[in-house]
Amino acid sequence: MKRLNMLAPFAVAITLAAAAPAAAQTVASAPEAAAPALYAPITVGEVEDAQRGWCSALVAISMEADTKGFTAAKALAGQVLDAAYGYAMGPVLFKPTLTVAPQTFRTTREGALSYFVGGDKTYLNDGGFALKHWRKCQSENAGIVITGNSAISMGNVSIWDDRGNLTKVDKTWGYVRGHDGKLRIVLHHSSLPYSPK
Amino acid sequence: MKRLNMLAPFAVAITLAAAAPAAAQTVASAPEAAAPALYAPITVGEVEDAQRGWCSALVAISMEADTKGFTAAKALAGQVLDAAYGYAMGPVLFKPTLTVAPQTFRTTREGALSYFVGGDKTYLNDGGFALKHWRKCQSENAGIVITGNSAISMGNVSIWDDRGNLTKVDKTWGYVRGHDGKLRIVLHHSSLPYSPK
Amino acid sequence: MKRLNMLAPFAVAITLAAAAPAAAQTVASAPEAAAPALYAPITVGEVEDAQRGWCSALVAISMEADTKGFTAAKALAGQVLDAAYGYAMGPVLFKPTLTVAPQTFRTTREGALSYFVGGDKTYLNDGGFALKHWRKCQSENAGIVITGNSAISMGNVSIWDDRGNLTKVDKTWGYVRGHDGKLRIVLHHSSLPYSPK
Amino acid sequence: MKRLNMLAPFAVAITLAAAAPAAAQTVASAPEAAAPALYAPITVGEVEDAQRGWCSALVAISMEADTKGFTAAKALAGQVLDAAYGYAMGPVLFKPTLTVAPQTFRTTREGALSYFVGGDKTYLNDGGFALKHWRKCQSENAGIVITGNSAISMGNVSIWDDRGNLTKVDKTWGYVRGHDGKLRIVLHHSSLPYSPK
Repeated sequence: MKRLNMLAPFAVAITLAAAAPAAAQTVASAPEAAAPALYAPITVGEVEDAQRGWCSALVAISMEADTKGFTAAKALAGQVLDAAYGYAMGPVLFKPTLTVAPQTFRTTREGALSYFVGGDKTYLNDGGFALKHWRKCQSENAGIVITGNSAISMGNVSIWDDRGNLTKVDKTWGYVRGHDGKLRIVLHHSSLPYSPK
Repeated sequence: MKRLNMLAPFAVAITLAAAAPAAAQTVASAPEAAAPALYAPITVGEVEDAQRGWCSALVAISMEADTKGFTAAKALAGQVLDAAYGYAMGPVLFKPTLTVAPQTFRTTREGALSYFVGGDKTYLNDGGFALKHWRKCQSENAGIVITGNSAISMGNVSIWDDRGNLTKVDKTWGYVRGHDGKLRIVLHHSSLPYSPK
Repeated sequence: MKRLNMLAPFAVAITLAAAAPAAAQTVASAPEAAAPALYAPITVGEVEDAQRGWCSALVAISMEADTKGFTAAKALAGQVLDAAYGYAMGPVLFKPTLTVAPQTFRTTREGALSYFVGGDKTYLNDGGFALKHWRKCQSENAGIVITGNSAISMGNVSIWDDRGNLTKVDKTWGYVRGHDGKLRIVLHHSSLPYSPK
Repeated sequence: MKRLNMLAPFAVAITLAAAAPAAAQTVASAPEAAAPALYAPITVGEVEDAQRGWCSALVAISMEADTKGFTAAKALAGQVLDAAYGYAMGPVLFKPTLTVAPQTFRTTREGALSYFVGGDKTYLNDGGFALKHWRKCQSENAGIVITGNSAISMGNVSIWDDRGNLTKVDKTWGYVRGHDGKLRIVLHHSSLPYSPK
């Protein structure tokens, strides 16, 4: 069957993904001791770590859905949101890839969770972006700019599903430190590349 | 003629646009005295002013092109870039609405200028976005987040051309203070709304 | 008795001080909901609140010592330090009024606690500054400068003891937000006014 | 003569000081190209450079006074103030070592200049701190804290005059970036060590 076949090139990613629920918990509960002070400038390395964390989490949610089902995936997605995004700190400026007006912008945790896993009657157009059998994800930056106690990055994110299909999006992220000193995304603009007609 | 007819609803905008080259210069050379200290937190009012400034400048460049021609419009676009963007401060994370790979991201002033007015052999796909006869432009925010010495905003920008056609995009901007204390855009992600097939 | 007599002018302050242990706890456990986002610029009002909080806490520790004894005062001083200073976030740059070399600077919580209440064998010169029967304290700023996600203030702090004696010091404080969004002092330079010989 | 004799140990410092007017100009007009972006976090290295710059400048003003006289020293002091302090950006929180009430705090450039070179009828107590024949100056930090787009340091500054007499003060400095990306002092609290009676 082609589907299984296509998994081969992603063996490493799958291995990583299989351990991802634990990995996601690690993101959420890493030891406080190592965290930088809340006022410390953000580093490029922290931005790159946050990007890898986002990619790992997306694949982990997909794997969770494919192996344990929707409820488990939704629970993991909630954990990931709290670990990676700043919804607990205030509104998050989030324009996901596939949302449409009047629900384009998801400034609340509820709206973001619906985008990732769907199943929310308030957002009927949401199909659950994280449930699309993602198996690999990587980020490539056009630039990272550190602006004191915040940082922004722009570039491409490439994600492959279990059939090896690639989706490549234009991605902007903005980061601040959360209460534990770890980065939280407070800005996320994702869009499909422009296609001239 | 329909074209002229369609101008009527934009009378106010056109009046404003007619004075826009001067207005754009005002942006570039406003009195230093009133500027906040370089380290002062950015305010919501400053972000809104910067957004209005961007809209005015876009219309001004279009009017300059339509009334004085390409060379004048390009000169104005250069002034506008220096007044509104932070290219003099470092790379700018700029993903314009209509760019395509491998020239999607325009982190240099040259790449941004080409996007706005075209005519640069390095960027052959650029048609000159600011030359599309824009007559009115307005910004509507989903949210503005002030992050100390920087700020980010997300929302829609609506622009109308001289035939009254509306283009509405999803827009993210990031701002810092320039050497004169005025805001400069160091992040700009613009995308057409997603269209489900 | 003169001592009691001298209390009269400070009736209001004493009333306030009598309730101060509770007030200090309020500082430490105020509702999270109202706190600004961690990345929000500091306001002048927050700086002034932090200064009033510091003054109230100093008087509260003195009152606790005078009414409940050293152990209670030391416990309160520890709570106050955690609520008002950023020792949990990293080193604090603290030069108290009365310290001498080589223990002039107290960058650790232990060193600060010793300065306020004494009784620590590591810091034998510390007499316990907060135990000097303070009854009233007020701050007067020469200036407050907001520097994005931090702030600094400079001015005088006047404190009166239970005999009405005034001590007036030159005071600099630097503030950042703690994990709960409330200000923490990460810089404190206090000095007696210079006396020309 | 003892005075000349005492100069010997400071031969190196004097050589450096002899070139100092040029050095101070270098501070003021270093090439823009190398400067970090205005929004870039301040580094520990930049703070240490600024401290060395302050020390060099103090000695340079003394040498200028001793070799060229008051007018030249005052002119150099003005240049140094503009290169090292943020008076052009807003008020500076400056509590010099030897000022007295009601002129303790020098938040304006005029007040700072008077402190360094004296001769200003508005500040009759100012003897001209930088004219006291300083020959060597060095800074030792108890700590440096980087708070995003600003930084603070605390420690001792030791200065020796032409007779080898040492003055050692407790020193706090706060820094931001100026319009040219270079650090400017916006906070300066200096005090003589406390002497228990």
